[in-house]
Amino acid sequence: MPAPERRSERAHSAILDAVFDLCVERGYAKVTIEAIAARAAVGKPTIYRWWPSKGALALEALHVRIGHATDFPDTGDVAADLRAQMASVSRLFAGDIGIIYRGVIAEAQGDPDLVEAVRATIIGPRAKQCGDRLAIAVERGELRPDVPLRTMCDLLYASLYQRMLLGAGEAHLLRVPEVVDLILDGLRPRT
Amino acid sequence: MPAPERRSERAHSAILDAVFDLCVERGYAKVTIEAIAARAAVGKPTIYRWWPSKGALALEALHVRIGHATDFPDTGDVAADLRAQMASVSRLFAGDIGIIYRGVIAEAQGDPDLVEAVRATIIGPRAKQCGDRLAIAVERGELRPDVPLRTMCDLLYASLYQRMLLGAGEAHLLRVPEVVDLILDGLRPRT
Repeated sequence: MPAPERRSERAHSAILDAVFDLCVERGYAKVTIEAIAARAAVGKPTIYRWWPSKGALALEALHVRIGHATDFPDTGDVAADLRAQMASVSRLFAGDIGIIYRGVIAEAQGDPDLVEAVRATIIGPRAKQCGDRLAIAVERGELRPDVPLRTMCDLLYASLYQRMLLGAGEAHLLRVPEVVDLILDGLRPRT
Repeated sequence: MPAPERRSERAHSAILDAVFDLCVERGYAKVTIEAIAARAAVGKPTIYRWWPSKGALALEALHVRIGHATDFPDTGDVAADLRAQMASVSRLFAGDIGIIYRGVIAEAQGDPDLVEAVRATIIGPRAKQCGDRLAIAVERGELRPDVPLRTMCDLLYASLYQRMLLGAGEAHLLRVPEVVDLILDGLRPRT
């Protein structure tokens, strides 16, 4: 018999895997807590002991799967670094991560607490990382100092969200490097 | 007895009013076709004769309510005109229109046909109007000629969608005029 702590760790990660895989297989809206419990071979009370809702559980599964995939490089060229990082985000949005994230955002439209949780779990920490990278670029004179860092982040990522939620399949959509360059054009110091 | 055509027109508009009002009262997700039929005093078959789904019905109700509220002025100053138009859109998104639109977008995350319908009914015609206004600005030398008009529209509106879907209540959010000015800074001709 494994120690209880070890068993609980395994159950925790089995649940996160189950919600992720089931959402990819069936679509977020069709996944129930019952199905997650069955797939993870745990009881429903175990799930509810750790997470208040399917949305909160899916958010943690998303967060864990995203891992370091959205970390920022620092090559000294903010445009190149943003193009690389946002291309990674765009690939995540177009793949399995996007399927679950769209489901969570959809559910959040009727649940303000879940909007808050999305911001706290997924958006906030990454906006902080982005802001840290942009702050270095401002110091180096690559970006104008008069626009709040969080504003710059919002402008950059808004089009990726728009594409994930409403744009799939549209032929006119910009490639990520072009979005980055166009937005940065407005954020560079006036010469 | 009114003529059948007249009666049918009244039923049509009663149904559109019912779906709109019910969504505002209960939230989009909680509104059923039964409730819409009861509120509009029509039978469910009447609704299904005209609309294939709640999503399609809500989209038409949205389209009718938005009406000319998103039309573009042409004062000769593209920045001023965009600030005015996007401030109107932002007010719509923050009000009853936003409640229903968020519900439709949420439902569309599990229904690619509804994403397509949102683009065809709501986004497409307005992006066309926006593109027409921006084309005039390009001709006048106010905007650079090398960025596709639809791309410019997407960049401008993406942040309004982001705010409607995920940003409610955030203090750091830009005011609309600042968004317009920042994005236009990247879209002006290089001097």
